[in-house]
Amino acid sequence: MGRVTERRKVIRIRDGAISTRPDTLVAEEPLEIRLNGKPLAITMRTPGDDFALAAGFLVSEGVLGAAGDLQNIVYCAGATVDGSNTYNVVDVKTAPDVTVPDITLERNVYTTSSCGLCGKASLDAVRTTARWPIADTPPVRVDPELLASLPDRLRAAQRVFDRTGGLHAAALFTEDGELLDIREDVGRHNAVDKLVGRALQNGDLPLSRTLLLVSGRASFELAQKAVMAGIPVLAAVSAPSSLAVDLAAETGLTLVGFLRGSSMNVYAGEHRLALRTAAAQA
Amino acid sequence: MGRVTERRKVIRIRDGAISTRPDTLVAEEPLEIRLNGKPLAITMRTPGDDFALAAGFLVSEGVLGAAGDLQNIVYCAGATVDGSNTYNVVDVKTAPDVTVPDITLERNVYTTSSCGLCGKASLDAVRTTARWPIADTPPVRVDPELLASLPDRLRAAQRVFDRTGGLHAAALFTEDGELLDIREDVGRHNAVDKLVGRALQNGDLPLSRTLLLVSGRASFELAQKAVMAGIPVLAAVSAPSSLAVDLAAETGLTLVGFLRGSSMNVYAGEHRLALRTAAAQA
Repeated sequence: MGRVTERRKVIRIRDGAISTRPDTLVAEEPLEIRLNGKPLAITMRTPGDDFALAAGFLVSEGVLGAAGDLQNIVYCAGATVDGSNTYNVVDVKTAPDVTVPDITLERNVYTTSSCGLCGKASLDAVRTTARWPIADTPPVRVDPELLASLPDRLRAAQRVFDRTGGLHAAALFTEDGELLDIREDVGRHNAVDKLVGRALQNGDLPLSRTLLLVSGRASFELAQKAVMAGIPVLAAVSAPSSLAVDLAAETGLTLVGFLRGSSMNVYAGEHRLALRTAAAQA
Repeated sequence: MGRVTERRKVIRIRDGAISTRPDTLVAEEPLEIRLNGKPLAITMRTPGDDFALAAGFLVSEGVLGAAGDLQNIVYCAGATVDGSNTYNVVDVKTAPDVTVPDITLERNVYTTSSCGLCGKASLDAVRTTARWPIADTPPVRVDPELLASLPDRLRAAQRVFDRTGGLHAAALFTEDGELLDIREDVGRHNAVDKLVGRALQNGDLPLSRTLLLVSGRASFELAQKAVMAGIPVLAAVSAPSSLAVDLAAETGLTLVGFLRGSSMNVYAGEHRLALRTAAAQA
């Protein structure tokens, strides 16, 4: 579809010098996700991998859990502007035996949301909709040095970022550090949804023996997506939020933040890190 | 309310050395926004400035445009867990003469969304819901050197980032570079909503002679919020998306990206930049 990037004219100012040149921008377009014909959500995303994005979104929402739950995904045939398909509306048809929960239009509006809405309610909602515990038996064991090597490899594998500087990236690695998949998107949640959706389509859920690396911060939403996909280790280049840490602690997710150079902070699930100097040095 | 940050235990790994210490994290909690008693949206946000966040969100959605449109905002009295108010549900009551449009639950689900959903539809939706053109007459004129000085001042004014590393920031400046307001949040859209909501409450909309600076990327959503608040100049430290540039070009918004050091890229609305070397040097 060739819409991952777009060209626009830009005026560059460098130390007072002005020049005009074409610039490559990351493409952003709305995607409407329909579930069995019914509009469910719209997300602003970078075009491409749209079926994976829709599938992964529905894994995160607790609708899909295995490739067999999915009957098919199509671009809405009537989705045209001036007679041409916009490729911005996808319809996900679930298999006949899939129970479709009453999910609302809003990302992160969990059905348990009550008048007493609080972080705890958000944690409870993930726990009740998660299809599997993080079932890495025996637990994944990761060497901190291996973890420390991943951000450079993520960056090396990013194709669009170098041209636009405008993308979030998410990558899946095996516990041995083999790169399984990488996705880029203007929305960090989309990048993770694309990874998870692709894994669903390939019959690889739950992702019990993988590490998920994200290029930015670790929010509640990203931790939730990791848990819903059965991923045991989430590592972020930047800071986690309090609720992401709480969710990790409650669900057994290993959460690593500020993964930079040979340094990192471990916020939860430290039993999966091979800490060779066993005693903590205060 | 003291919930802008929270403390958690963290295991730090630095060059193989392990230590355990308390760490300060940015707080993240869900906020449900109700409109005249009806649930409208839930956003994950950093607690604080919740009334401003709700008001600004409704400016972005085209519901509110002036302080008089707002009757009051309250924390939902019944929003309790174990008998204590969670302060996570706010109800916005509009003045009797305010027409409340039929807005859907989803952020960015514009009512014009049709089967032919595309970027163009998103641009049209902003144009039809915007209350005012960008009415800076005469146009705001900004010296690039002034713009270049703003990121350092934004960073200096960020209070929570230094402790947590986990926050997006947005700041409003006058056209002369005076800092008017700064807000931080786990969600960049929330930081802008908080700025705009506070301005609404103070009777300062439209923000016709201000510059909006954001710490990260310039997405369509942020450009849309600037346009809806009547802000003529949006500057971002990082990259814009294609649709943000398109929206800026259509609405007359000045959009500056990659504002770093003495360098910047101007994507739209360059007539507001005082480019002293008038001729563009190819």
